[in-house]
Parts: sequence; C-alpha cells; structure tokens
Amino acid sequence: MQTMGLALHTDKYQINMMYAHWVNGSHRQKAVFEAYFRKLPFGNGYAVFAGLERIVHYIANLRFTDEDIKYLSEQEENYDSAFLEELKQFRFCGTLHSMKEGALVFPNEPLVRVEGTIMEAQLVETALLNFMNFQTLIATKASRIKQVAGDDILLEFGTRRAQEADAAVWGARAAYVAGFHATSNMLAGEKFGIPTKGTHAHSWVQTFESEQAAFDVYAKVMPDQVTLLVDTYDTLKSGVPHAIETAKKLEAMGKKMNAIRLDSGDLAYLSIKAREMLDQAGLNYVKIVASNDLDENTIFNLKAQGARIDTWGVGTQLITAADQPALGGVYKLVEREIKGEMVPTIKISGNPEKVSTPGKKDVYRIVDRVSGKATADYIAFPGEEKPHDGLRLKLFNPQHPYLQKYVKNYDAIEMLTPVFENGLLVYKLPSLDEIREYHREQMDLFWPEYLRKLNPEIYRINISEKVWDLKQKMVAEYMQQDE
Amino acid sequence: MQTMGLALHTDKYQINMMYAHWVNGSHRQKAVFEAYFRKLPFGNGYAVFAGLERIVHYIANLRFTDEDIKYLSEQEENYDSAFLEELKQFRFCGTLHSMKEGALVFPNEPLVRVEGTIMEAQLVETALLNFMNFQTLIATKASRIKQVAGDDILLEFGTRRAQEADAAVWGARAAYVAGFHATSNMLAGEKFGIPTKGTHAHSWVQTFESEQAAFDVYAKVMPDQVTLLVDTYDTLKSGVPHAIETAKKLEAMGKKMNAIRLDSGDLAYLSIKAREMLDQAGLNYVKIVASNDLDENTIFNLKAQGARIDTWGVGTQLITAADQPALGGVYKLVEREIKGEMVPTIKISGNPEKVSTPGKKDVYRIVDRVSGKATADYIAFPGEEKPHDGLRLKLFNPQHPYLQKYVKNYDAIEMLTPVFENGLLVYKLPSLDEIREYHREQMDLFWPEYLRKLNPEIYRINISEKVWDLKQKMVAEYMQQDE
Repeated sequence: MQTMGLALHTDKYQINMMYAHWVNGSHRQKAVFEAYFRKLPFGNGYAVFAGLERIVHYIANLRFTDEDIKYLSEQEENYDSAFLEELKQFRFCGTLHSMKEGALVFPNEPLVRVEGTIMEAQLVETALLNFMNFQTLIATKASRIKQVAGDDILLEFGTRRAQEADAAVWGARAAYVAGFHATSNMLAGEKFGIPTKGTHAHSWVQTFESEQAAFDVYAKVMPDQVTLLVDTYDTLKSGVPHAIETAKKLEAMGKKMNAIRLDSGDLAYLSIKAREMLDQAGLNYVKIVASNDLDENTIFNLKAQGARIDTWGVGTQLITAADQPALGGVYKLVEREIKGEMVPTIKISGNPEKVSTPGKKDVYRIVDRVSGKATADYIAFPGEEKPHDGLRLKLFNPQHPYLQKYVKNYDAIEMLTPVFENGLLVYKLPSLDEIREYHREQMDLFWPEYLRKLNPEIYRINISEKVWDLKQKMVAEYMQQDE
Repeated sequence: MQTMGLALHTDKYQINMMYAHWVNGSHRQKAVFEAYFRKLPFGNGYAVFAGLERIVHYIANLRFTDEDIKYLSEQEENYDSAFLEELKQFRFCGTLHSMKEGALVFPNEPLVRVEGTIMEAQLVETALLNFMNFQTLIATKASRIKQVAGDDILLEFGTRRAQEADAAVWGARAAYVAGFHATSNMLAGEKFGIPTKGTHAHSWVQTFESEQAAFDVYAKVMPDQVTLLVDTYDTLKSGVPHAIETAKKLEAMGKKMNAIRLDSGDLAYLSIKAREMLDQAGLNYVKIVASNDLDENTIFNLKAQGARIDTWGVGTQLITAADQPALGGVYKLVEREIKGEMVPTIKISGNPEKVSTPGKKDVYRIVDRVSGKATADYIAFPGEEKPHDGLRLKLFNPQHPYLQKYVKNYDAIEMLTPVFENGLLVYKLPSLDEIREYHREQMDLFWPEYLRKLNPEIYRINISEKVWDLKQKMVAEYMQQDE
C-alpha cells in the first residue's frame, strides 16, 4: 500500500544506465518507451488492464529521499555527487499515455507509453512493469472466473496465500475491477471502498462446547449477517442440521439466516444434499457459499455437475494466478532523440516475435457501427491520418498477407489516454465503480467467441501499412549492415 | 515495505469472530494456535523458514488507527462502540514462539505458536500466514536453485515480474537468506543491506549509434563494474566481438572487464562459443552471466550440457515460485481455556491428513552425536520430560507403527524460540548475515539425501507417544459422540 518512498523500487541497472547517460551527457535526450506483453495468460482471449491508479500515485510521488541519496552514495560505483544532487531534485516531467483500467487489451499493443528524458523514462520502467504485470494478471484471472460464474456472487478470499501484503490488497482491487463482488481483506475495503465479506473460521466452532452453541452464539451476535461454516466436524451429519436449528431460532426472532458455507469435501454432492435438507426444512431462502481451492475450471465443472452453489469464495488460485503467476510485460524503447529529432529504434532478436515494432504508436479500437461490436484493434503512428468513419481502413495480417480486409462504417476509439503531460497529471482518476462500469462496457464490445475461457477466437491486432513498412525497412537495414 | 497501519490487513471474519467473542464475553479466554503447512512445495525435501522479521514488526506495531476505527464503525455489522473503543486500545499482549529464519522446517510441525486471548490470537492469523507463507515459499525455491548452482554466483532479478512491490522486496530478502548473493532491487538493498547488482538493458545499446559505442561509453563511465549485455542484435556475430574490443580498450586503461551477459537464445551453445571467443582473445578472466527464465531445472540441464556460465540471474521463476506459487500454511487452534484451565482441542475432517493434532507442542531436532547429522524432529508436549542425552527416545511412525526405532547419544535442539512474552519482544532480531550463517549451519545438519531436488529422502517428523495417544483419544471421543 506504500506509495511514497518507492524511488529505489527499481532495478540497479536503471540507476547505472541513468548514471552512464549522465556522465555521457545524453541523459536529457528524449526517448519513447512502450509497455506491452507478447502473450495472453491462461490461454485467454483477452487481458483486463489494471494497475494505472497505482502507477499514477507512484509517478506523482516519485522523489529520492535523503536516505535514498545516502544509500546510493555508499554504493561501490561511487556515483558522482553532482549526479546524486540531480537525483535529489528529480521529478517526473515526462508524458504518459495509458489504457484505462478495466479495458480489454491484447498482445503487442502499447498499454502504457512513456515519453520523456532517457533518464526519467528509464527510472520508472521496473515499478511500472511490476504494478501493471501483477494487477493486469489478477484482473484477467478474475475475469475468466467471472465468465464462468455468470450472475453468481464472487468473493475474493485469498489474503493468507497472497504473495505478501501488496499482492493481497492490490489483487483484491484487481478482482473487483473485473467483476468480483467483495473481498475478505479489510485493508482493501478501507483503502478502496470495496465491499467486504466474511463468515467465521473452524476455530470459532472449536472454542465452544458444541457446534450448536457456536452457531447459536454467532447468530445472536450478528443476526443480520449469519453465514455458518458447516464442515468443522461432519457437514451433513452435524453441520447442516445444526445450522438448520439455528436458522429456526433466527426465524423465531423474525430474522433470516443468510447462508451456510461448505469448505471441504465433494462440493457438488454436499451442496445438492445440503440444498435438499435446507429446502425440506423450509429454508429455501438460505444460500450456499462454497470455498476450497476454486478456480474457473472447478467452478465450471461443479456447475456442470448440478452443484447448488450460490456464492463462490475464491482464494489461492485467483490471488496468485496459480496456473500462470506472471504476465511477461516488457518495456521497450521505440524512439530516441538524435540531434533534436525523434528517430524510431528497433530491437532485433533471433526470436522473431521478440523483434520490437519501431516508432511511437497509437491504438484504436475499431467498432462496427451496425453490430456495435469490436472488429479489430488498429495500431498507427500519430502522424498518420486518424482512422475515422470516412476513411476506408485496410486491416491486414503481416504474418499472413493474404488475410486482409477493408472496413468502413466504424467508430475508431482512441485507447491510449493522456495521463501525465510534461509531468502534470491531466487524468482524473475514475472511481472504482466507474472503472467497473467501463469494464462491463468493454466486455459488451466483444462477441462471446473472443471471451470464452477455452480456445477463444483470436481478436485481430492490426498495424497500419506505414508501421509495417517501417519495421520491414529497419529489419532489412540491420540485416544488410550485418553482411 | 509498510509495517505500520496493517491492523486491517486481515480477513473480515477475524474481526467478526473477535466481535462475536466480545459480545459473548469469551474474548479474553486464552487460546493457543499453531501455524504449520501440511505439504512441502516443489516436491522438495525441506522448506526454509522465513518471514519472522516481518511478523515481529507487524505485531510490535499492531494498532488500530482512528481511520481504521472509523471504517469499522461504518460497516454494515454495526459493531458496538464499546468494542471499537477496546480495539482502539488494542496491543498484542500474547506470547509467540517461532522457528528462526533460515531454519529447515517440515510438514505438520508448528512453525509459529501463538498464545494469548482468543481475540488477539485470532486477529494476527491472516497477516502472519500471509508473511510466513510467501517468504518461506521463496526461500525454499531459492534453496533449490542454490543446491543446483553450487558455488556459482546467484543474482535475484525478478522485480518486474513479482506480484507487486512487497513481493519483490521481501522476496529478494528471502532469496538472500537461502544463499543468493545479490538482488537487482535497490529498495531491498537499502532496507536490508543486501548487495545489489545490475548491468544494463537492451535500451542502453539502442540509444547509441552502434553497439560498440554503447559498450565503450558504459565501460568508460564504470570501468570497475563492466558487465555488457551482448544480445541486443546478434550475440556471437556482434555482441561478443564488440565486448572483446571494449575489454581490450579497458586493458589499455589498466582495467579488467567483469563479465558479459547472455539473455536469450541457446544459453548452453552461446556460453560455450562465447567462452572460446573470450579465451582466444586472452580474456579468460571475463565471466559469463546468463539470464532468461531460469530455474533449478534449466540451470541443472545447462550445467549438464557443459554450459560455461559463472553467474545466474534468476527472475520470474524464483520471485513468483512459478511452479507452485503458494505455500498452504494454516493456523489451527490447539488449546483453549475452559473455566480457567487450558484444554486441548481438535479439528476433525473427512480428509485424514487434515485432522489437527491437539495440544500445545514443542519441536526438537534430534541430532546424532556421532555423525553430527539430524535423525528426526520430535514433537512433544511442554509438560513431558524434555528429550536429552540420557533419555532413550522412541521414534515411531503413527501411520505405520512397525516403523519404530530407539535413539540415544543425541543432542535435542529446541526449535521454537521465544519471540514475544506477554506482549514483550524478548527476541533480538539477528542480522541478515547471521541468518544466512544459521541457514548454512542448518543445511550442514542434514545428509545430502534429504536435500536433493528430485525424489529426496523423507525426513522423519515424529510425535511423542503422549501426543499420539491424546490425538487418538480425541478422535475416538468424537466418533463415539457421533454414533
């Protein structure tokens, strides 16, 4: 949750490169970097962008403290004291564009674009990637779960298994962005206004002489919030019958029990049986909450087996994105200043998909006006004519040039929003509810085929002919030079 | 890195249970909880305990701020204002014992033991598990990598792929505990005194007209710290020859280049070829650093293929523990106060390995005096005669009673150390170097068979006959009651 004092939350090579540029006199040259990922996580058809609020706070508060300077001065590199003095005065004065949180995003399109001096653009790389990679990963995982759970209630329960405190709190927020309804983490509730939910633990039952006494006391204390955990001893023989008795006592007080929670065993079988027992007792209003290592696959299978579960408590698998715990977002130099002019730059690689796309780029989402659905994303240079309804747009697949089509009668939505301009925050951070609403609108832009969890249709990310031509030209130049 | 303001870094059900106990008048009853895990991660033969320093700072600073109280007062549960007033005054006044950081630990033995009022013992559960689970996980993963790397240098390079900031910083510390030599994360360097290392990125090379110019400038600025990344264009055709030229220029200045870094491609082939080229140029002192999604398996295989790599930069796979990104540590009630007396308690489960072991317990490491090696861990009640040299000790496997043996001529090391006594910190936190040293000593206590990464021998965790008898008795009582 810390937003101050993060200037040194960076890789040492950033400081070394800043210093080397400073000594070389090139530190004030302008550069443009773009952050993007190359591959979607979990075999999903889209990712859900998150992390911008965290990035904004980080950049707005980016200062080297006296302690930081002292620490740097003691490093074996012996940084020049004039360099350290410059760091002391450091403020981020660059320009940053970003996808909005909640946006659906795709491989190889710029998600965050940073323009500034080489020094400032380099400094922010590590933390920016750290925040974007994690929060986008968790929002994407949460969205997959949401796709399967439909209108069921989804609770984020992962704190104890999260990878330390920040992951728990920011992960809870990312899950909420993608449609989860509440979290168990109270700090996330306090900081972000996310609704919080909680029941009781096995230890609550163990501290009483009997399960019945434990349930009755809990119901008496919080009669409007009663969800009883029924598997401390035996779910169907002990837990559910005791919960039914407590529910009847609540009815006598004019109150209604909220739910029971299953946390172990065969959740399909137990939920069907528990539902029968509750219904036979006239408690058809009592819901069933399930938890225990759930993810989109177990939830999908439980639903297919007819499990009678109303609310899903999802922990470890979501908060760690257990099946793929890292998003491989990268941050690449695309333009640099040479003698006052901005010049595109490329990184070559023996691995073709790792060759970067040169030049500063914009991203447009092309939405068909008839269907209201997204057709493709279109990446072009800022200097090109902006796509608009009157402009017939050629969409082609560079890897497979015969795959091309022309579109018209579309809206072209600019996806990268100005956030900082010359160091000034120009973006009004939306509320979390606005982000959720934006995310829902984003989901509505896509045909279901792109959104399914298994073997989704691949959404087209097209680059303009100018972008393609430049990339080809620069690769060819490099190859020639190599001969 | 935040240590203050974490009182609400907890699950809502903890607050709800605290409140329900408070209303019920049972909140000051004493309770004993033990934190442990049931299964070793990664198929490893041991885990490396870490997280205690974080837990100590958390508990010592555990206060509800005015904001926290205000937030709680606005929750839908309508907590009584006298309860909130009590939270305002809250201090942890309990007793906590723990394994020391760096200790080798095993399944189903208490790692942290908390004794206090039910209210305080319940409050700390979530954060304690969050810290212990993550840091122990990463230290264990790092130890596996260390086992394979032998005397090679190991660098932690994972920040950009870590699960948010805390994971990067505490993860770097956990890796260092287990024998890594340095981290790239400067904040971890500043906060913990961990050595930091860094080279330069591809973007450094891209900001110059030529790779040669980029290398030369970097070497000029930091002549004593030159590690050059050689894969921006083509490793063997461009990167290594340019690095050699820079090294020769450094020699002319009376300086020695430190290393080259390989970050893509076939690291076995490239390192062997690069080594040849360096040696032929008389640069046999120049080391080779490798990075690119490394873990204990890739390092093991690269070494088997004769890769000539001196230093390993390990990122994503370590910092997220990618093959198993969560340790399933739990926190279970083992004793509770009834009418002034402490009484053991059990949690039954349909899943036999999830049945808890009742009663407050100590852990001894039994070390054979002849070999100096650990024979088994031995878990007993504090009231039992402590194992000591004169006491012939029966070690038996409860699941397989024919597997028993008697040991004598041993040292019995008490593994749980007093940390807090009635709220008072009684443990002097060791320095990180002391922790590393303790960890090395711990490793030396074990035969290599327990330490290998594949199919390790299973180290014996034995419980005393008294502990076994009590567990059997309580399970039987529960079963009878159920008839």
